[in-house]
Amino acid sequence: MKAVGIIVEYNPFHNGHLHHAKQARQESGADLVIAVMSGQFLQRGEPAFADKWARTQMALDAGIDLVIELPYVYATAQASDFAKGGIALLDAIGCSSFCFGSEQGEINPFLNSRHLLTEHWAEYQHLIHEAVQTGISYPKALNNAYLSLTGNRPGFADLTQPNNILGFHYLEAAQNLSSAMDPLTIQRIGANFHDSIQAGMPIASATGIREAFFKGDSIEQLSAYMPEGSIASLKKTEKEYGKFGSWEKFYPLLRFTVLREGPHRLKQYAEVTEGIENLIYQSAKTEDSFESFISLIKSKRFTRTRIQRMLTHIYTGFTWQQLRSFEGPEYIRLLGMSRTGRNYLNHKKKNTTLPLVSRAADLNNSMGKLDIHATVMYLQGMGSTNLKKEFTTPPIYWG
Amino acid sequence: MKAVGIIVEYNPFHNGHLHHAKQARQESGADLVIAVMSGQFLQRGEPAFADKWARTQMALDAGIDLVIELPYVYATAQASDFAKGGIALLDAIGCSSFCFGSEQGEINPFLNSRHLLTEHWAEYQHLIHEAVQTGISYPKALNNAYLSLTGNRPGFADLTQPNNILGFHYLEAAQNLSSAMDPLTIQRIGANFHDSIQAGMPIASATGIREAFFKGDSIEQLSAYMPEGSIASLKKTEKEYGKFGSWEKFYPLLRFTVLREGPHRLKQYAEVTEGIENLIYQSAKTEDSFESFISLIKSKRFTRTRIQRMLTHIYTGFTWQQLRSFEGPEYIRLLGMSRTGRNYLNHKKKNTTLPLVSRAADLNNSMGKLDIHATVMYLQGMGSTNLKKEFTTPPIYWG
Repeated sequence: MKAVGIIVEYNPFHNGHLHHAKQARQESGADLVIAVMSGQFLQRGEPAFADKWARTQMALDAGIDLVIELPYVYATAQASDFAKGGIALLDAIGCSSFCFGSEQGEINPFLNSRHLLTEHWAEYQHLIHEAVQTGISYPKALNNAYLSLTGNRPGFADLTQPNNILGFHYLEAAQNLSSAMDPLTIQRIGANFHDSIQAGMPIASATGIREAFFKGDSIEQLSAYMPEGSIASLKKTEKEYGKFGSWEKFYPLLRFTVLREGPHRLKQYAEVTEGIENLIYQSAKTEDSFESFISLIKSKRFTRTRIQRMLTHIYTGFTWQQLRSFEGPEYIRLLGMSRTGRNYLNHKKKNTTLPLVSRAADLNNSMGKLDIHATVMYLQGMGSTNLKKEFTTPPIYWG
Repeated sequence: MKAVGIIVEYNPFHNGHLHHAKQARQESGADLVIAVMSGQFLQRGEPAFADKWARTQMALDAGIDLVIELPYVYATAQASDFAKGGIALLDAIGCSSFCFGSEQGEINPFLNSRHLLTEHWAEYQHLIHEAVQTGISYPKALNNAYLSLTGNRPGFADLTQPNNILGFHYLEAAQNLSSAMDPLTIQRIGANFHDSIQAGMPIASATGIREAFFKGDSIEQLSAYMPEGSIASLKKTEKEYGKFGSWEKFYPLLRFTVLREGPHRLKQYAEVTEGIENLIYQSAKTEDSFESFISLIKSKRFTRTRIQRMLTHIYTGFTWQQLRSFEGPEYIRLLGMSRTGRNYLNHKKKNTTLPLVSRAADLNNSMGKLDIHATVMYLQGMGSTNLKKEFTTPPIYWG
């Protein structure tokens, strides 16, 4: 059996994700689609809109065959580490290809760009270092350095586009791993990453969907943009928690934590750097809403996403020391599977290069305990007192 | 002008407190009564039922002339340090006597006991050490050692009684400070420290009043046990916060904090000792209510009060390192005054041995910042977002 891997957040699963999954299957000629999905906290440094089990259910309902969890340490990391974790897991579970959505839509420009940077690695690093010195953000510095190398020559990937950047890191991760997986990409359609929803368009970004909801649309009203399974799972989430995850909802706990720790101790948490702990602390003192809080902190140098990742680690209590203790994924955590997914596992289970884990109780290394911890922290932000959900929820079987 | 000092919590102010204040004035022949009152967290390791400003108002309404704040570090400490902070402040503000309520009701037995222990200090310490080794609680060990020294001879204070113990520590603190204040005591009447309220009795303990309220009595229904001023202030508190302070109300934030920190980091907080951090962490994992949580932790060795003090420090983020950095009160923080209190201050203000502080903005040492921090933590537990209350509330003038 041949599997194609995709790396996803499904926050929530929408029609654009459905398109991606179908195209990945078609382009790869694979028998099944395996998704590595972020857990309770996401790459932009935010709590998930719905918990990982609800999002797994959405994925299975839409035809994904196997959902495995991207551990917290990768799910909440900057693009290169996020990619490293996702690609390593797809490789470990035996995918013969991986497929990402991109603005570019073709794989060759990515391969050319990757080749160019490998050839000129030292120069590239030097250019990045110089650009950072001017006070611009790290993503911008990367891009400036890259443009200096490519000049205006055609045939290279446009790394100003968010999905192209991520795609580039997937290729880099696969190459560093000497993975045998074929890289594939498909053109993203309909909506850009952060676009708001537009009436009459069946594709909206996940950000647009969440925004529309928080502005007052009901889940029902957003049904044009999501498969039926997503609508059902979101309704179930609303019933279970009475709300959806967002920093605004988590802010009272975050604020308490920031104020309790004080600037001196805030420094110990992963990604908190360069004195920004003072600004975080002072802003928590005065601001009653998350939006006004983060508005005071973000800047040209520190993007919202970067700040949010710091806040995620402060919220969960994840330190620099912990961050530095991990070297690569240590297990394959199963969140859900279709009948095809189960057959695949039955064939593969002796050949995966990392252990398969179905039960939280079997996550007895520090990386796995961190995933359980992240769930406990997430559930409290969601106002739940059922903190044992990680232990009482088996992988979802869709058969 | 002659002042008598008392050390109080007023949680809330009730008829027993009124009796104590009146007797203190009468026995001492003083012109005014000065109360050193705990701030937002109390000696039993609990958040206050009503905030310190509400409790100051109650005190002034009942005739107290001057209310000054016992800093967090003393207010939440074991009896000897609590006493040390309170006595030092009464001495600093120039009281000529201090007066405590006791089960004993006469001062001579206290003086005798104090004298005996001073004479046999080394033996006393040795006996305590031996008793602790047998696994009993520290208060019990103190008492056993004390009983070994006094035998059954009459004329000594009965240090099995909670208010006698506290009184004994007051004397000890005054003696260590070489204070010129006269020690006075009056007999406690009506209700024991933790007694439940009894119909038809005008005196109930503060514990009894709080319990009755949390069991469903309205503030109105408890009016037989408190002066009118207390009832009015409690109603105002209820209106402002929608609730009263208790661990049960603060438990979601406490639980989040305990689970976020994990046993390894919990050890850094003041009073957390001897591996109890593991039990605290494991109990937070499973228990949804504060009562069931603390029931799993307390034991013969670790009393509820001692555990609650640890939890207070965990909640506020107060570490062993901070605890060890303080040597004695550093300022006199004014919370409220009557006309007489103001006259007294006008006479005394150049002669107090510590600086008088009226505004939170002037608390610029670490002890004072800790008091402001404790308020910020308390207000969040009370569900308030007005975290600047410390800076916007001047001392209350009752004139």
